[in-house]
Amino acid sequence: MIPGPIEYEHDVLSAMSKPTYAHTSKEFSEIFKDALEKTMIVFGAKEGLPYAIAGSGTLGMEISTANFIKKDSKVLVVSTGYFGDRFVDLFSRFSKNVEAYRPPLGSQADPKQIYEKVSKGGYDLVTVTHVDTSSGVRNNIKEIAKFFRDLDTILVVDGVCSIGGEDFSMEWGVDVAFTASQKALGVPPGLAVGVVGPKAIKFMEKNPPLTFYSDLRIWQNVLRTYMQGKAAYFATPAVNLIVALDVSLNMILKEGIENRIKRHQIMAESIRVAIKELGLKFIPKEGSYANTISVQYLPENVKQTDFLSDAERFGAVFAGGLIPDIKEKYFRIGHMGSITSSEVLIAIGAVERALKKNGYKVELGKGLSAAQEVLYKNSY
Amino acid sequence: MIPGPIEYEHDVLSAMSKPTYAHTSKEFSEIFKDALEKTMIVFGAKEGLPYAIAGSGTLGMEISTANFIKKDSKVLVVSTGYFGDRFVDLFSRFSKNVEAYRPPLGSQADPKQIYEKVSKGGYDLVTVTHVDTSSGVRNNIKEIAKFFRDLDTILVVDGVCSIGGEDFSMEWGVDVAFTASQKALGVPPGLAVGVVGPKAIKFMEKNPPLTFYSDLRIWQNVLRTYMQGKAAYFATPAVNLIVALDVSLNMILKEGIENRIKRHQIMAESIRVAIKELGLKFIPKEGSYANTISVQYLPENVKQTDFLSDAERFGAVFAGGLIPDIKEKYFRIGHMGSITSSEVLIAIGAVERALKKNGYKVELGKGLSAAQEVLYKNSY
Amino acid sequence: MIPGPIEYEHDVLSAMSKPTYAHTSKEFSEIFKDALEKTMIVFGAKEGLPYAIAGSGTLGMEISTANFIKKDSKVLVVSTGYFGDRFVDLFSRFSKNVEAYRPPLGSQADPKQIYEKVSKGGYDLVTVTHVDTSSGVRNNIKEIAKFFRDLDTILVVDGVCSIGGEDFSMEWGVDVAFTASQKALGVPPGLAVGVVGPKAIKFMEKNPPLTFYSDLRIWQNVLRTYMQGKAAYFATPAVNLIVALDVSLNMILKEGIENRIKRHQIMAESIRVAIKELGLKFIPKEGSYANTISVQYLPENVKQTDFLSDAERFGAVFAGGLIPDIKEKYFRIGHMGSITSSEVLIAIGAVERALKKNGYKVELGKGLSAAQEVLYKNSY
Amino acid sequence: MIPGPIEYEHDVLSAMSKPTYAHTSKEFSEIFKDALEKTMIVFGAKEGLPYAIAGSGTLGMEISTANFIKKDSKVLVVSTGYFGDRFVDLFSRFSKNVEAYRPPLGSQADPKQIYEKVSKGGYDLVTVTHVDTSSGVRNNIKEIAKFFRDLDTILVVDGVCSIGGEDFSMEWGVDVAFTASQKALGVPPGLAVGVVGPKAIKFMEKNPPLTFYSDLRIWQNVLRTYMQGKAAYFATPAVNLIVALDVSLNMILKEGIENRIKRHQIMAESIRVAIKELGLKFIPKEGSYANTISVQYLPENVKQTDFLSDAERFGAVFAGGLIPDIKEKYFRIGHMGSITSSEVLIAIGAVERALKKNGYKVELGKGLSAAQEVLYKNSY
Repeated sequence: MIPGPIEYEHDVLSAMSKPTYAHTSKEFSEIFKDALEKTMIVFGAKEGLPYAIAGSGTLGMEISTANFIKKDSKVLVVSTGYFGDRFVDLFSRFSKNVEAYRPPLGSQADPKQIYEKVSKGGYDLVTVTHVDTSSGVRNNIKEIAKFFRDLDTILVVDGVCSIGGEDFSMEWGVDVAFTASQKALGVPPGLAVGVVGPKAIKFMEKNPPLTFYSDLRIWQNVLRTYMQGKAAYFATPAVNLIVALDVSLNMILKEGIENRIKRHQIMAESIRVAIKELGLKFIPKEGSYANTISVQYLPENVKQTDFLSDAERFGAVFAGGLIPDIKEKYFRIGHMGSITSSEVLIAIGAVERALKKNGYKVELGKGLSAAQEVLYKNSY
Repeated sequence: MIPGPIEYEHDVLSAMSKPTYAHTSKEFSEIFKDALEKTMIVFGAKEGLPYAIAGSGTLGMEISTANFIKKDSKVLVVSTGYFGDRFVDLFSRFSKNVEAYRPPLGSQADPKQIYEKVSKGGYDLVTVTHVDTSSGVRNNIKEIAKFFRDLDTILVVDGVCSIGGEDFSMEWGVDVAFTASQKALGVPPGLAVGVVGPKAIKFMEKNPPLTFYSDLRIWQNVLRTYMQGKAAYFATPAVNLIVALDVSLNMILKEGIENRIKRHQIMAESIRVAIKELGLKFIPKEGSYANTISVQYLPENVKQTDFLSDAERFGAVFAGGLIPDIKEKYFRIGHMGSITSSEVLIAIGAVERALKKNGYKVELGKGLSAAQEVLYKNSY
Repeated sequence: MIPGPIEYEHDVLSAMSKPTYAHTSKEFSEIFKDALEKTMIVFGAKEGLPYAIAGSGTLGMEISTANFIKKDSKVLVVSTGYFGDRFVDLFSRFSKNVEAYRPPLGSQADPKQIYEKVSKGGYDLVTVTHVDTSSGVRNNIKEIAKFFRDLDTILVVDGVCSIGGEDFSMEWGVDVAFTASQKALGVPPGLAVGVVGPKAIKFMEKNPPLTFYSDLRIWQNVLRTYMQGKAAYFATPAVNLIVALDVSLNMILKEGIENRIKRHQIMAESIRVAIKELGLKFIPKEGSYANTISVQYLPENVKQTDFLSDAERFGAVFAGGLIPDIKEKYFRIGHMGSITSSEVLIAIGAVERALKKNGYKVELGKGLSAAQEVLYKNSY
Repeated sequence: MIPGPIEYEHDVLSAMSKPTYAHTSKEFSEIFKDALEKTMIVFGAKEGLPYAIAGSGTLGMEISTANFIKKDSKVLVVSTGYFGDRFVDLFSRFSKNVEAYRPPLGSQADPKQIYEKVSKGGYDLVTVTHVDTSSGVRNNIKEIAKFFRDLDTILVVDGVCSIGGEDFSMEWGVDVAFTASQKALGVPPGLAVGVVGPKAIKFMEKNPPLTFYSDLRIWQNVLRTYMQGKAAYFATPAVNLIVALDVSLNMILKEGIENRIKRHQIMAESIRVAIKELGLKFIPKEGSYANTISVQYLPENVKQTDFLSDAERFGAVFAGGLIPDIKEKYFRIGHMGSITSSEVLIAIGAVERALKKNGYKVELGKGLSAAQEVLYKNSY
């Protein structure tokens, strides 16, 4: 239950071991087309260019930025954690005009403040991390995005820890969004997946990036050809991962995106009430909670490495921290993708026993009872 | 969490889809040899004939009986449930001298009573079901078997719901024992697996059975050849299942049989204390509990079909009853094979929510708390 | 390329490793129903009872005989090889009135002779092996069966090496037929698969067999229930194999039975012309060739074990002989199931090189050329 | 039989569907470590930095170049086909000083000419494509590389269509080499795999690239940590592909690199003699043939699309051309990885039948005979 790679459905894993189609074959072209079309749906996009390119989420960051700036473009990074801060590092390679807006730890970015900055600042591009995996803080993309519809400024959303698990739509006013296969899309790691909207496409067509592999102008031709069910070549696609992506997207749409998001909300709530009941403190402030990940401090005297290894032995693998100063003081529970009540009980059960094992006073079952109430109420 | 087919380890399932070896190949002969040798270990057998034959557990019953009687042999069936009673039906085809000893529902057979019957009765063969899957009653094979060492009477133990999960040894005095792959051996259904001891081998070599496919005299030659790492033929083995059996036996021996049985005991205890805490009543009497399955009555007003389908929706598949008169009044939780604390929490969580959903007054989390205490105490 | 286990399609093998459904689940009941219905189609049966029972083909033999005789019924076994002779052995357990009709080695049985014997002899049951895997001789079931429509005598056909690869229909007048999963049905070994027609059902309903596991009267209730998409229990089905069977039957019907048989014919012909071109002599006489297996003598001075192990190293696994007197003098090439031109070339290529390696004078490529002509002519 | 994705071993594909390890887990760290160490061996590298990064071979090109030049570095591209020419395109993004040396189509580059150019020209970096997949021309890396040992100029070798199938060693004087998983390494597409030698490491440590995802300075820390069996993070590795890579590298080393290259040589020779026998003309000149791919012109009146689709129907998928002017006039047979005599016969058999089908006069079996001779002579 780390925040990705998550546990994958049998049918998705099984698709990984299908004999590899020739990337030029009719069969694969149809599958890739289907996967790209369904990517559009999951991103809530009516128009634009979807992609699924061999690489990690970090490649998605590069794709989503290097293609949409010129040398020394003015950039605003909205950072609510480690992955927000990464954008600063990334942009510094391409531009000297990078600024960061950092709300206090645990707080969402204020949409109005962004709007004010942007309307005054003359930014070419703004990035926001929907859910920062390091802090568990979720930003209000819907409110932020609506300002951008009428602006030239390009809005890039890092949806790595959200898309497929949180409510999201390109149509809110988002120009560029991306995620990684191994998160809420439910596919093993190895694909950067994203959508580029019309405003951003217009920009990139006029402005060549300095990078090569992430050059979306080249990819656009390839992807548009595959979207017609025909093959094209720039780089051999990660065929087996694309096939697995198609299987997973089919399962996502079969469940229904609304049902899926609702399920993530309920599972997240059941975990949160349990964690609260056990007396732990969250990093995200009230109202900034994500539905894909829960991030909370450990009790004072509980050593992180001991807690994590005990929890693993007790049946649940959690992740440590990523935010430099406090990385050893908190832990993270991922609950994305195929998460059900079963994983909730396993996780909370392991948290309880591992906390007690490490000297924290906890009444075993207290968190579980709280989780059960939420699950029961929602008929899960 | 029905009492078989259970959930199987990834590596076991993965072995099922390996390209099928020729049954005459060196590779398969070595694997079959290895699987047979390890079957001996898991059955606690120092000498005798192990087998793994394509078929269901029901074939195991036929193999374990048809080979060890003559027409109208005198047979005693110790029955503690539905599967005990089946032996009566089975033997009636071959003999007119079949008697049954049926302790009251939920009670173990009394070893002394068996001894008395056998020493007086002149029985050729006695069958005992170790754990009857229908009632969850476990018999005390160790105590029963020790009398048989010095008798001509052949003792057959149905280990379908026990071997690989309960303490068991052929060396206690058992002459014939069998199980099915899909139970505590952790392999998908399709193999009857068993061991025949020296006394029983001597008998069968002199007495041809009326059946054909289950004729162990023919199989013996085949199996002994494979045990030398060479191929022989009577019927094409279920190659993929044998390969999966070998993988599973390796995992069982890697865990260690003692550790495995200890794990089954703790998981069984954690489920039992939870069930008790929820106010349900077991069919087995105190001291007759199995470690592989828990069998309990539903509360008066809870309808079985509703309860089972709700529990399934809540994450756990349980089994209904099998004992004719009361089959709709109880349910069964299988906990065999790779069972861990995770499945315990899932099962109890689902029981709680499904009971409440069906109008039973239950404090959500109460059973889970009790289970957690047992798991914590045992560091699981 | 032994005559089973054969090479299986990826999707069939992949189905083997799907997490095992509960045998009582709705999902499995639907799959089992579907597999049974499609078994009827592949057996060319309009009415009757289809089955797929955990066990080897040898179990199929027992099922197909023990259920259709009384003690000391009069039985005629038409034997064109090792597997025909096995029936004699099998029946001897149940009856003292077993006769065999054995055409000369390599020859088909003469339908008229069978008719004469049967019309005079008062036989209760007659068995014919469609294709005897040991000799490669194919009997003319269509001609043989038509006599039986108006007789009380039950006609049992061993279709182990034929059904799914050779033209066959229960409606010709066959009362009982069976095969094993690992042959032309294209599923790993572990299932006996068959169909019982109305005349045979009537018989078995009145006459209990002495066996237990193979008692079709019990199975009938179970199978009829599954055929309504509901679960029933006598023995736990080999769930994963049934799921794989369903996948394979779907592929068979997608190809179309006629196309499939046509393909077997062409592949068989291409192998036969190649073998002839290389100067080898077949066991079956002209007109008795099977389309699922080719059986031919080795040249005088070629040692079977050397030839087989060289051929294996060169890419093709063949089988040795089974007919007692000559078992070391011939070899068998199975070509069932997913056989294509690729396997033909691999097989003939390996035969050529292995023959030459063992001192036989052969012009490399001569057999391949002959095979190519047949493949080319048929656009394969 | 396209030049990648190739057909993969069952165990490699099966590894793809193993439940995904946490990338931070001990298990995965050990596997990644092992895979990196074995990558060094397959690249014939005694020192340096191995990598396996989520992405296509095209990412490998970027990694292998962007890290080893400064803005406007002087670069020489040795191009023997389409993939050589790609480097010119790639470098043009980073430098204005890019030159190409293009031997006539089908000819190897002359090592002496390269040496002369480099010793005079003051190049910072030179790229050579070992085997250009588009032309089938193999360059003599051993001769070319030896000059570079004493030069500051960095030699980059594109080993995409060679490493794992052709003789190759970093120790010859190569500074940077890379390939893609889906070629002779035998792993589905999705990994760029390479090694960076000491001279190149020294350069890159002083010169930051403009790209982000392909920045080896960042990756170096991560990879060096994994090489100690510990986890580190820059981007989530393509866990399942790394696990599959490790399985494949183990199989490669089990076969032995020398044996593997020898096998590629013999299979290539058997295909070449067959193609020659059929009267087709190769693009590579005598002595420039690769062992991993065969590239030949189609006969004048044979239409490529018809030929390719017929060949596919006849059992072998080949690839069309890539070199702009003549792309429809030739076809390519990939023979990398697990290639055996079986694939040779399938390929040549399909070529023969598809040529004849398209009106070319060909004696069926002639190519196969020639191939058989080579296979026989080499005991394959």
